[in-house]
Amino acid sequence: MHTPEIRITNPDWVRDTVDFDRPYPDDDARVRLAIALAHENVVRETGGPFGAAVFEAATGRLVGVGTNGVIRLGNSGAHAEMVALMMAQARVGSFTLQADVDGAPRHELFSSCEPCAMCLGATLWSGVTRLVFAATREDATRLSFDEGPVFPESYHYLANRGIAIERGRLRAEAIAVLDAYLARGGPIYNR
Amino acid sequence: MHTPEIRITNPDWVRDTVDFDRPYPDDDARVRLAIALAHENVVRETGGPFGAAVFEAATGRLVGVGTNGVIRLGNSGAHAEMVALMMAQARVGSFTLQADVDGAPRHELFSSCEPCAMCLGATLWSGVTRLVFAATREDATRLSFDEGPVFPESYHYLANRGIAIERGRLRAEAIAVLDAYLARGGPIYNR
Repeated sequence: MHTPEIRITNPDWVRDTVDFDRPYPDDDARVRLAIALAHENVVRETGGPFGAAVFEAATGRLVGVGTNGVIRLGNSGAHAEMVALMMAQARVGSFTLQADVDGAPRHELFSSCEPCAMCLGATLWSGVTRLVFAATREDATRLSFDEGPVFPESYHYLANRGIAIERGRLRAEAIAVLDAYLARGGPIYNR
Repeated sequence: MHTPEIRITNPDWVRDTVDFDRPYPDDDARVRLAIALAHENVVRETGGPFGAAVFEAATGRLVGVGTNGVIRLGNSGAHAEMVALMMAQARVGSFTLQADVDGAPRHELFSSCEPCAMCLGATLWSGVTRLVFAATREDATRLSFDEGPVFPESYHYLANRGIAIERGRLRAEAIAVLDAYLARGGPIYNR
């Protein structure tokens, strides 16, 4: 087979542990879900210590979730944010999550950790209007995870296109997940 | 279905038009395939005017190809380079295309156009050791395609991690494809 079909999935446990029917009313509830996904991914040994989720901004409806699946899926693009954004777009049936005059709502991306260069670019293309993350670049690089070419100007670029950014929300809880991964000797694939 | 499976595919015509059995002996042959993929994607109306391919550096063996499938797949991450890298990793059966002591060869990514911020990050994580592209950021932005937060320091970052970059190879041929897309009134989804 010359051009195989690529499949990107979340681990099976996601279906049993994530509640898609409850609302996630505020930032803390939303970022806490992203951190919980990272935590479960570590303890169930299904990937790196990263989780992400996409919500409708106004209602708190959960639209997509993602867990790091780089090694599990054999795909260096399968970062948590990429997976969450792709899942959200699959659910809304469009390549964009942006609001429109026909009533499509605004969407926001929550991540357990600051996005790498790839995921920050993907955030821009996804149509979300806000990015919130918990642990920071410094926290990830302490584990020797490389975050890639992200600079202050990168964030200015997103801000100029209408994307709001919030850093360090529930950071300590996300750091605890990174530390748990480190303590278990989890693989650092981008070292 | 709460966490749907994401499928990323190339258009059916790729199977019939791309020769995986011949070697691609030099840079011109390799970048010309990337441009041909972009061209076919335009004339068959299966996506944006972008194509990419991954080769074994030493042998010229073709390992993966990608075409822009953002609208077709409803996935803002389905840029040509992302697809080509994922296809190549699926074929080699690993999340990395890097050479190793067990004999895995070096790989190179060829693109019809300068990668956006997302794809440049993905290039870094993919394990390729060289990136060659034809049309430039300026050429893409002339069509109002946004390339995202890529700066000179971004390329320095990749270079420091051992990735060689070559710009503008067969640029005029790639510009012709962009112009053909513009003349047809193809959608500019990142405007």
